[in-house]
Amino acid sequence: MKILSFESSAVSAAVCLTDGSRVVASAFQNCGLTHSRTLLPMAQQVLENVGLRPCDLDGFAVAAGPGSFTGIRIGVATIKGLAFGTDKPCVGVSTLKAMAHNLSGMTGVVSCVMDARAGQVYHARFQLNGTQPPVRLTPDRAVLISSLAEEIGQNPEILIGDGAEMCYTRIIEICPRVVLAPSHLVYPSAYGVAMVALPRFLSGETMTADQLDAVYLRKPQAVQMREKRFNGGNVT
Amino acid sequence: MKILSFESSAVSAAVCLTDGSRVVASAFQNCGLTHSRTLLPMAQQVLENVGLRPCDLDGFAVAAGPGSFTGIRIGVATIKGLAFGTDKPCVGVSTLKAMAHNLSGMTGVVSCVMDARAGQVYHARFQLNGTQPPVRLTPDRAVLISSLAEEIGQNPEILIGDGAEMCYTRIIEICPRVVLAPSHLVYPSAYGVAMVALPRFLSGETMTADQLDAVYLRKPQAVQMREKRFNGGNVT
Repeated sequence: MKILSFESSAVSAAVCLTDGSRVVASAFQNCGLTHSRTLLPMAQQVLENVGLRPCDLDGFAVAAGPGSFTGIRIGVATIKGLAFGTDKPCVGVSTLKAMAHNLSGMTGVVSCVMDARAGQVYHARFQLNGTQPPVRLTPDRAVLISSLAEEIGQNPEILIGDGAEMCYTRIIEICPRVVLAPSHLVYPSAYGVAMVALPRFLSGETMTADQLDAVYLRKPQAVQMREKRFNGGNVT
Repeated sequence: MKILSFESSAVSAAVCLTDGSRVVASAFQNCGLTHSRTLLPMAQQVLENVGLRPCDLDGFAVAAGPGSFTGIRIGVATIKGLAFGTDKPCVGVSTLKAMAHNLSGMTGVVSCVMDARAGQVYHARFQLNGTQPPVRLTPDRAVLISSLAEEIGQNPEILIGDGAEMCYTRIIEICPRVVLAPSHLVYPSAYGVAMVALPRFLSGETMTADQLDAVYLRKPQAVQMREKRFNGGNVT
């Protein structure tokens, strides 16, 4: 089963073509360029390099959130277009669950963290079980870094995600047993997206292009500000 | 320090642009196409995607062997051309040592194995030390799979490399504690090449294009056959 998966929920962008659990081709970049410029050309390159077209695939998967509002929107919009254009199914998965799969093979507890600004991170915790898939221990949520630090305390945890380094620096003094994921695995990967999506493709739990949507967890800042203004009675 | 690294020593091909230990961009494919067709276009895409040219880099690194004779020759020839064309330094590293770096973050013993045909594998063993670099336990060598199985015996070891799955199937009955590396890390990576090359770039232990050469460990089959024929007195 050939799936093309997209990850653009943070500063990095990634595309991965898998056949079952095997990586056929992949591309990754983390150079600060906007995903609207980079993501689709990367997908085109991945397919051209292996001599396939979008219509040759069985479906599309994307990290649908949480993460950067713009990044998620670009990823979701891209696979909506591909799924609609090819009339193939698609699947949106949790960004945080997908990145836990980067550490398949390892054991221990991993905290997946993405920078959510304003002293918060998007966070979920998973148990790593060697060759078995990671097991979820908490739901995806937005949490204050200070609250997360209290929660971790003296426990040994691995930090992964685009918020991992920032979080590590902020909490290492009160959480002395946290470690950073290896540098080649610390960023969200499109392979992880594929591994969360694969069982859903196999069991037929897929979506059509119009059913897929982003999962923001928090309202976009513009919406928050508008609501605040309305609620504060500042409407003119 | 920006290094462009190449891995084409087996059936997969990979290119990785690193800045220090950070992955800036990467591309990988494992679809059976010949590296002479895929490797340089992948390098070009990786650089174009991040807006860099070969002359913007600090140097080039390659998995120089052991592995497929043709694959290694293509990788080495490619970076010879790039290093010569840009007048930048280059570094050739052990394919087996490079792939051990895929499992950075893990602990345990890893056996890196590449299919060397004729019942043999190219093999080297490394101790994985979590966030520290892997430590070499054996030299790179060509070894009979049956001898490797005797050597491993009841020890727990992780198998990685393009020969890992074949080797696993052949030895699991007499080596019940071997496990396969996770599927997204089992193939040689250009990131691993960069991580072995980086200290050599930093300490100035680099080469010029004309100094770089492939490390085959065994003589190519054509040479072996010619020597056999000459030694057998079949010269006409």
